[in-house]
Amino acid sequence: MGESRWSEGDVVALKHPGTPPILVPLRRGPQRIGDAAILDLTEQIGQAVGGSIEWVGTRYAVLRPSLSDLLSTMTRGAQIITAKDAAYLVLLAGIGPGDRVAEAGSGSGALTTVLAYTVGPAGHVVSFDRRPEALHLARQNLERGGLADRVSFHERDVLANGIEGTGYDAVALDLPEPWGVLLSLRAALRNGGRVVTYSPTYNQLERTVRSLRELRFDEIRSLELLERPLHVGEGGTRPAFEMLGHTGFLTVARKVD
Amino acid sequence: MGESRWSEGDVVALKHPGTPPILVPLRRGPQRIGDAAILDLTEQIGQAVGGSIEWVGTRYAVLRPSLSDLLSTMTRGAQIITAKDAAYLVLLAGIGPGDRVAEAGSGSGALTTVLAYTVGPAGHVVSFDRRPEALHLARQNLERGGLADRVSFHERDVLANGIEGTGYDAVALDLPEPWGVLLSLRAALRNGGRVVTYSPTYNQLERTVRSLRELRFDEIRSLELLERPLHVGEGGTRPAFEMLGHTGFLTVARKVD
Amino acid sequence: MGESRWSEGDVVALKHPGTPPILVPLRRGPQRIGDAAILDLTEQIGQAVGGSIEWVGTRYAVLRPSLSDLLSTMTRGAQIITAKDAAYLVLLAGIGPGDRVAEAGSGSGALTTVLAYTVGPAGHVVSFDRRPEALHLARQNLERGGLADRVSFHERDVLANGIEGTGYDAVALDLPEPWGVLLSLRAALRNGGRVVTYSPTYNQLERTVRSLRELRFDEIRSLELLERPLHVGEGGTRPAFEMLGHTGFLTVARKVD
Amino acid sequence: MGESRWSEGDVVALKHPGTPPILVPLRRGPQRIGDAAILDLTEQIGQAVGGSIEWVGTRYAVLRPSLSDLLSTMTRGAQIITAKDAAYLVLLAGIGPGDRVAEAGSGSGALTTVLAYTVGPAGHVVSFDRRPEALHLARQNLERGGLADRVSFHERDVLANGIEGTGYDAVALDLPEPWGVLLSLRAALRNGGRVVTYSPTYNQLERTVRSLRELRFDEIRSLELLERPLHVGEGGTRPAFEMLGHTGFLTVARKVD
Repeated sequence: MGESRWSEGDVVALKHPGTPPILVPLRRGPQRIGDAAILDLTEQIGQAVGGSIEWVGTRYAVLRPSLSDLLSTMTRGAQIITAKDAAYLVLLAGIGPGDRVAEAGSGSGALTTVLAYTVGPAGHVVSFDRRPEALHLARQNLERGGLADRVSFHERDVLANGIEGTGYDAVALDLPEPWGVLLSLRAALRNGGRVVTYSPTYNQLERTVRSLRELRFDEIRSLELLERPLHVGEGGTRPAFEMLGHTGFLTVARKVD
Repeated sequence: MGESRWSEGDVVALKHPGTPPILVPLRRGPQRIGDAAILDLTEQIGQAVGGSIEWVGTRYAVLRPSLSDLLSTMTRGAQIITAKDAAYLVLLAGIGPGDRVAEAGSGSGALTTVLAYTVGPAGHVVSFDRRPEALHLARQNLERGGLADRVSFHERDVLANGIEGTGYDAVALDLPEPWGVLLSLRAALRNGGRVVTYSPTYNQLERTVRSLRELRFDEIRSLELLERPLHVGEGGTRPAFEMLGHTGFLTVARKVD
Repeated sequence: MGESRWSEGDVVALKHPGTPPILVPLRRGPQRIGDAAILDLTEQIGQAVGGSIEWVGTRYAVLRPSLSDLLSTMTRGAQIITAKDAAYLVLLAGIGPGDRVAEAGSGSGALTTVLAYTVGPAGHVVSFDRRPEALHLARQNLERGGLADRVSFHERDVLANGIEGTGYDAVALDLPEPWGVLLSLRAALRNGGRVVTYSPTYNQLERTVRSLRELRFDEIRSLELLERPLHVGEGGTRPAFEMLGHTGFLTVARKVD
Repeated sequence: MGESRWSEGDVVALKHPGTPPILVPLRRGPQRIGDAAILDLTEQIGQAVGGSIEWVGTRYAVLRPSLSDLLSTMTRGAQIITAKDAAYLVLLAGIGPGDRVAEAGSGSGALTTVLAYTVGPAGHVVSFDRRPEALHLARQNLERGGLADRVSFHERDVLANGIEGTGYDAVALDLPEPWGVLLSLRAALRNGGRVVTYSPTYNQLERTVRSLRELRFDEIRSLELLERPLHVGEGGTRPAFEMLGHTGFLTVARKVD
């Protein structure tokens, strides 16, 4: 989207080589960044995306944040889904631009962000959580990333009351007891649509797959991803010593009637 | 995209529970599927996506193919990038709807398909390969998936002649010697844009990262993904015995000036 | 043990570079190897270990087989414990030269071979199985490896009748329901001795650990090992594409009263 | 070895359920343990291994330390080889009771301990290091474990001066440049004997294998082991979040003339 111009309300990533990007909303007038520094981006409004500014003695590129920028700068509540799992979940669920998808729960909004980014301006995400504080944090994170207009947040206990709405292209579940939602979820999916669950334990995995089989879901598949960072040295290249041993098990299944 | 209607030229996925989807172009009149069976989809034209048909005694849902449907039914030439790697590459590269991206080489069109699907109808993919037969296979696969209008294929030896064009949001390299392209690629990227390379060996990885450092790319990061399939039995759940031991190393880096 | 001399009844490994070792018992007179070839090792008796012979036009080193030679040439019945798991099981169980250990079941004798090799001539292994055909195969494999005199095989259903004997330094369980043996096994272990179980599913793992906790075993620890073969090419080094995705979960625990 | 009796100079493991074992030499008279507590084990001398004592209000089993007890209580200098790697190295190298093996370097004595334990009282280990302080620490650790009489330590730069001695059953190398020793090592191995190297980087791996091929070693094989700890909860079992991402690459090869 390299040729677009900045509008008021956009989210800007200020990027200087060697330091992480800083995400800032594009507003008129000075705004306080972090503890003390004052930044005024007013002049960027209407200019081409991808220029640069001088701020507190440093030159920054003024960029449209990418999905990985949004994820890496997110305010975290509880443990969030990792980028590798979110990326693969989206592909396994068959989610693309223009899709209408649901998720439960909202968590900190990390998966919501990935979904909202992927469905694009023509798509929509419905996000359910029964905890007001989770909804609040997720909404904040989506606003911070400039993607809030693609998401409807609903305070709802889907285990008790089911998934609301119908015709979803896909539904993603990041819940402790996903099996309790699958019956209502099946009715909420369009034909050929997919559900993906993300669960940390084998016990959850087994019980989820059992329910998917009982409900005659098709193309059921479970897997996990391990990400191994690599240390690249000059003449000393190896896998990194630090590694996350486990994130979660992914299960995907399809409604076919 | 659940509410759209079928148009002539769309690609349809016929799906019966328990069997893989069959991809068919939506044409007027009968067409031969596989060895002998004749299928006539004419009546679907103008109807809502997601209906069903009766064909050779079996009921099929008539679905819009998802990205995973496209990948799993692709005609393969040489070894293709796996779905997990393609999905994570897209996220690491920051690619989303509306983006303009390049890739070299085209391979069998698997990564091209993922890129074209992800950038959506508002985006564009430029795909370079110096081998006419690879371009031919990749183009066939994109046409088969109904995504060919989002891709420009160019016969070009990017190692000798560099990446053509400028202002790309991202460039993906699946080449034996990616380091030879990085200088021209840097000029072809917009500021803040990213390159991702996919290489099977440590030697390629080390040499690529060395070049990225010399060319002052930012946010350089290398990793690999391992996908572990899970066998879920009733009271007998475990990792699957079959597993692919290695696919490739991913390296991502960002141009920041 | 490089300085010993060959005795009648020893097992010999004939080794030619580039081909796997051939294991042969050292007997007087000609013996048939494989389909047709006749071999006479009579002259080796009394000679130093490590010499060489000429046989069917090829020179072979005449070696004492190592544990990995024994494992790689073993006649396999059902799936056997892999070398990596057997080696780590032995260390985790604290098994060394001179120890007296038990195992159930005997399987094909692969783990029995590792145990017998490790405890050395001063130690002893008691191996239980309720299936006569498993005991027969295991005994054959131990005889073939020249280690049968360190092992007592017992036809016994340890689930129904418990582990026989007391004062074992360690007990290894490769059974579908190891938890059913743990009570009798605790009585059969010396104080400070360890049990190690090897189970393919998480359900078995969880139930085993629950029983170990109920029976107040100490130092309970569960893990799995993944072996990743490496392909080393000149300028093309990488993990191998072929890899075994899963073998089994190891659990070790200690009796401390 | 459950029936033996304690002798002066043995090493004792004091073990109370729920706490790590405490290793103490068996001496006459009181000795200071840790900061302040005084322990007198004199009465154990001549008694059967496996009894118990009362000390500072707690009952301890008085056990012969196993190999895993020795490793887990070792005084560490630099990074040491992990237990899984040491156990598999021993099996791959074909090392068993009675063998005569060499290692370079001595490191902190962790691998030395595993080798000395495995070869048993009838075997022997020769350990080379060019750094006096490494030899000192390794020797201390072997004495602390009661295995020092099975090991000869030699201050020697094997890269410059080669492996000393001949007829070794196996040689283990934990050196930054193992390829520099392989020529002298080949001469020091008995026919059929094996070398195992342990290296953190792929660059070392590739260069080592190249040298092994040039020197016509047989049965060359490279691999790595990943240990994945398991968290076993009641109804909540999963791989642990903590995991070591990399230890080292193992290469084994055999001299066959």
